[in-house]
Amino acid sequence: MSRIAYFGPQGTFTEQAALGLVRVGKDELVPVETVPAALDGVRVGDFDGACVPVENSVEGAVNATMDALTDGPPLVAVAEAVLPIRFSVLVRPGTRIADIHTVASFPHALVQVRKWLAEHVPAASPIATTSTAAAAVAVAAGEFDAAVTAPVAATHYPLAALATDVADVADAATRFLLLRRPGELPTPTGADRTSLVAITADRTGALAELLVELAERGINLTRIESRPTKGRLGEYRFFFDVDGHIAEARLGDAMAALRRRCTSVRFLGSYPKADGLATTPAPGTTDADFGAANDWVAQVRAGRGA
Amino acid sequence: MSRIAYFGPQGTFTEQAALGLVRVGKDELVPVETVPAALDGVRVGDFDGACVPVENSVEGAVNATMDALTDGPPLVAVAEAVLPIRFSVLVRPGTRIADIHTVASFPHALVQVRKWLAEHVPAASPIATTSTAAAAVAVAAGEFDAAVTAPVAATHYPLAALATDVADVADAATRFLLLRRPGELPTPTGADRTSLVAITADRTGALAELLVELAERGINLTRIESRPTKGRLGEYRFFFDVDGHIAEARLGDAMAALRRRCTSVRFLGSYPKADGLATTPAPGTTDADFGAANDWVAQVRAGRGA
Amino acid sequence: MSRIAYFGPQGTFTEQAALGLVRVGKDELVPVETVPAALDGVRVGDFDGACVPVENSVEGAVNATMDALTDGPPLVAVAEAVLPIRFSVLVRPGTRIADIHTVASFPHALVQVRKWLAEHVPAASPIATTSTAAAAVAVAAGEFDAAVTAPVAATHYPLAALATDVADVADAATRFLLLRRPGELPTPTGADRTSLVAITADRTGALAELLVELAERGINLTRIESRPTKGRLGEYRFFFDVDGHIAEARLGDAMAALRRRCTSVRFLGSYPKADGLATTPAPGTTDADFGAANDWVAQVRAGRGA
Amino acid sequence: MSRIAYFGPQGTFTEQAALGLVRVGKDELVPVETVPAALDGVRVGDFDGACVPVENSVEGAVNATMDALTDGPPLVAVAEAVLPIRFSVLVRPGTRIADIHTVASFPHALVQVRKWLAEHVPAASPIATTSTAAAAVAVAAGEFDAAVTAPVAATHYPLAALATDVADVADAATRFLLLRRPGELPTPTGADRTSLVAITADRTGALAELLVELAERGINLTRIESRPTKGRLGEYRFFFDVDGHIAEARLGDAMAALRRRCTSVRFLGSYPKADGLATTPAPGTTDADFGAANDWVAQVRAGRGA
Repeated sequence: MSRIAYFGPQGTFTEQAALGLVRVGKDELVPVETVPAALDGVRVGDFDGACVPVENSVEGAVNATMDALTDGPPLVAVAEAVLPIRFSVLVRPGTRIADIHTVASFPHALVQVRKWLAEHVPAASPIATTSTAAAAVAVAAGEFDAAVTAPVAATHYPLAALATDVADVADAATRFLLLRRPGELPTPTGADRTSLVAITADRTGALAELLVELAERGINLTRIESRPTKGRLGEYRFFFDVDGHIAEARLGDAMAALRRRCTSVRFLGSYPKADGLATTPAPGTTDADFGAANDWVAQVRAGRGA
Repeated sequence: MSRIAYFGPQGTFTEQAALGLVRVGKDELVPVETVPAALDGVRVGDFDGACVPVENSVEGAVNATMDALTDGPPLVAVAEAVLPIRFSVLVRPGTRIADIHTVASFPHALVQVRKWLAEHVPAASPIATTSTAAAAVAVAAGEFDAAVTAPVAATHYPLAALATDVADVADAATRFLLLRRPGELPTPTGADRTSLVAITADRTGALAELLVELAERGINLTRIESRPTKGRLGEYRFFFDVDGHIAEARLGDAMAALRRRCTSVRFLGSYPKADGLATTPAPGTTDADFGAANDWVAQVRAGRGA
Repeated sequence: MSRIAYFGPQGTFTEQAALGLVRVGKDELVPVETVPAALDGVRVGDFDGACVPVENSVEGAVNATMDALTDGPPLVAVAEAVLPIRFSVLVRPGTRIADIHTVASFPHALVQVRKWLAEHVPAASPIATTSTAAAAVAVAAGEFDAAVTAPVAATHYPLAALATDVADVADAATRFLLLRRPGELPTPTGADRTSLVAITADRTGALAELLVELAERGINLTRIESRPTKGRLGEYRFFFDVDGHIAEARLGDAMAALRRRCTSVRFLGSYPKADGLATTPAPGTTDADFGAANDWVAQVRAGRGA
Repeated sequence: MSRIAYFGPQGTFTEQAALGLVRVGKDELVPVETVPAALDGVRVGDFDGACVPVENSVEGAVNATMDALTDGPPLVAVAEAVLPIRFSVLVRPGTRIADIHTVASFPHALVQVRKWLAEHVPAASPIATTSTAAAAVAVAAGEFDAAVTAPVAATHYPLAALATDVADVADAATRFLLLRRPGELPTPTGADRTSLVAITADRTGALAELLVELAERGINLTRIESRPTKGRLGEYRFFFDVDGHIAEARLGDAMAALRRRCTSVRFLGSYPKADGLATTPAPGTTDADFGAANDWVAQVRAGRGA
């Protein structure tokens, strides 16, 4: 039984995401209070993996994840999950909507169901809790009347769903990664994503040059974020997500270029995309194209002409 | 008296930032519960401006700010503030450290003072509140023993600072903008920043081309973030912060290029940088250089040779 | 009657090209012995224009043209002509092929009809003359038996064409420009070419940056040549031909950018292309697109939001 | 004894260049009438090498060289020579300057000594010959009074130098290459040049993208020329000379990129530069940098983290 940590407590969106990433009967899920604690637990061998939010998490912690991934020994992502942000409103069995005077949840979650609350329980007082799951605990304990939670919370507590699929904005989503200690990479599927973080010097155009390295190899950038580094003034870290797997030639070639040009590059994993949409390499950028070009250079260098 | 909204309640870091941006005796600060409400209040004329967090806010809401700035009628930033993230630990007067059994704050704030708590009040229970200021309110009301807050909270409540400048990470900071309805732009100071958000089509290399437009004009990019747009799959919005003022020729020229190449561009303001560090244009990119080049083209077009 | 110089003597390919560029009954063609002399004659007002070869001329002088255009007061091209390289073989009337023992021409022309000579007059001796026309003069004078010339030579001398359309390579062509002192530019036709010469510093990537300026504005480069400058070691001049007219916004914008980035830029003219093929601006690069983008920036600068 | 062809006849600048490139006592120089004949002779094994002009040749043939290099089986350059264009004026012994009534030479050479002739023998008639050496032959035979030639011509004919180092323009130069059938490449010296010719599709920006591939690897482009290809309308061949040897990592990497992106690439050789000026790789582009980056990618791919 391998042990997979997740940013807890039990009943959060991160647990919900983790459930979709683990192997039934082989992985045991363990809630951990903070993202850094989950990741450090993997680093020291307490866990075999950790599921953490990386983008637009309703329960925050995304910056914490980014920081925790770039500091300390390397970890690599082996899978991703994307969850639509749809809340359940949980109550103790028998509670009617007219009985609801207090609604508890993590503050960001309360903001995201504001319209629903205004419409259905306009008089209820919002109550902040440290997570959506903590709200469920408190409601089960009789402290408050209703909890706005991830759907999975209903499976942990003796509560009933008064409403499901609650969301003011229809298509918001949160993205999670399953991280492990470095080891054999996931097999390329043709629909993969690669994540990395690079530090460049504070020079005008430095980022443009990196993106040109990607573009010239036909590599599609799906996400970019900059954050100042902690140590040095005017230095930035860039988080990149790109389509493709580092086992592919164009990715490996681009990564080597970034490695040469950057102060540092950290590989954060190549893994199947949650959406399963295949990547079609641009003309001239398939593995065969790279192989042929390298063979050609080898032939020229060997003096056989070309 | 002009009315400036800020992401409240009273006593948060946003109020602290707002205090540094308003004119004493001329601007009245009004706490507003959410970022969208603050910005919409400016749009409809209820307020003359709004101070909101835009980067790394300890109390979240940054994504809310970004979304609220790109939807609805345009607003423009006229000033920025950067606050170091340093907390105060507030207690009712007379409370000794040994008396502290509960510590309340916004969840993200509790995470950021974890080490301090472990060292000084290891046995205290953390309590989540909807904001750092709400913790102060609760402590003043006798509900909990200590509140982790922005320094400014001490001025609003009958509480004493048990500790100040508390922060696990020494150099974390949060950035805020003062936004107004479009109007006369702030005068260029030579140390300005321009913010904008652009939507590009989902084409490999599209972002690289935009950054090359900036780099070719010697424009330094200080921040970039991508977020998927709500409406269309595979479309991204990019938030850019660059050094310089749109009144400057190289900025205006670059903005026009972005405008031509993007599905849409929204100008979010040109305003003095909080750090006051002057921008030195690269050779060939001063206003005089642009003026001379345009004069030269005009001369050629007029048939006077060159 | 305006006077148009051409790189002579009478009967050369340049005269042939000039005939296609001048206005019948209004322009008088005057042969001039060298390209620099023709261009300097325009500069000092002895001529109103000059027709000279600029690319792949069978009678050479192309480098001389490039040098003469970049030194001295500016001249601008107002028209171009492209001639297929097809020779006539001229003889005195009555000469039969069996009578031909000597074939005279400019050396480069003799090289280009080598196969024809080998097949038809394999025993004839090649004789070098200072131009193809000089060969016709010599044949008319009875010095040699046959001359390899431009077709137009047949109109000047009492000679008969033994063969026409003679060329070892089917599709070779020579390009000529009609140059004038700066003045009103030719009206844009939608099928124009712009020529310029730029000097850049000897820095890795300098040329790439210039070409990116063109590419980012969708400007098609149809010819590029580099030559070391005379004065300074390691400095290069680049001759560019691009599709479009400097009166067009994308061209003017690009020229201004080049002007800012280069040590010097000389405009060599915007003129209708000989092939008449219209240029279709890339999306986002029409005059209307540039106009809209500039209006947008003006609106933003004026504080009207956008 | 190996046999090296050169673009003759004996006594031309090309022979002069060839003398500087061959091994005394080991290579025999053989004049060949045309550049294509010299190169084809190497291809079929009649010669072991050929010395031909490639840039700014006073006796023309440069375009012929470029065409002959790109058509037919590949040849590669193994050495280059750069000759200042300085002429000798040769006469039969005893001829005084006052005796000179005719001056013979290749037409381009006559143009380049125009000022000298105007000053010293203003009344002499210029006479065109098929090469500068042919003029020496004719003067030796008593046909004309003086020949304008390469300095080496004086060693072949019973003529005396009336003047040497004659040149209207002080610093003109001609460049020559020694070409061989493909075989072991010259050993890298640190001061090498690589020549290649690439065909790109007729797409706006295609050339810019190739130059960016070079620039991103810190490769200095020292010469570029475009010529339309013979076969297809709107297709261009680009001749590139760059600093560096294909045995170097950055060159090999760039060549592979060009190979992937172009319709075709032909390698024309890596050889020591005539000027012997060492190339200093830009930061991040040494062989060690490329090796480290490739090792890093290999390590990541092997699952060992990074």
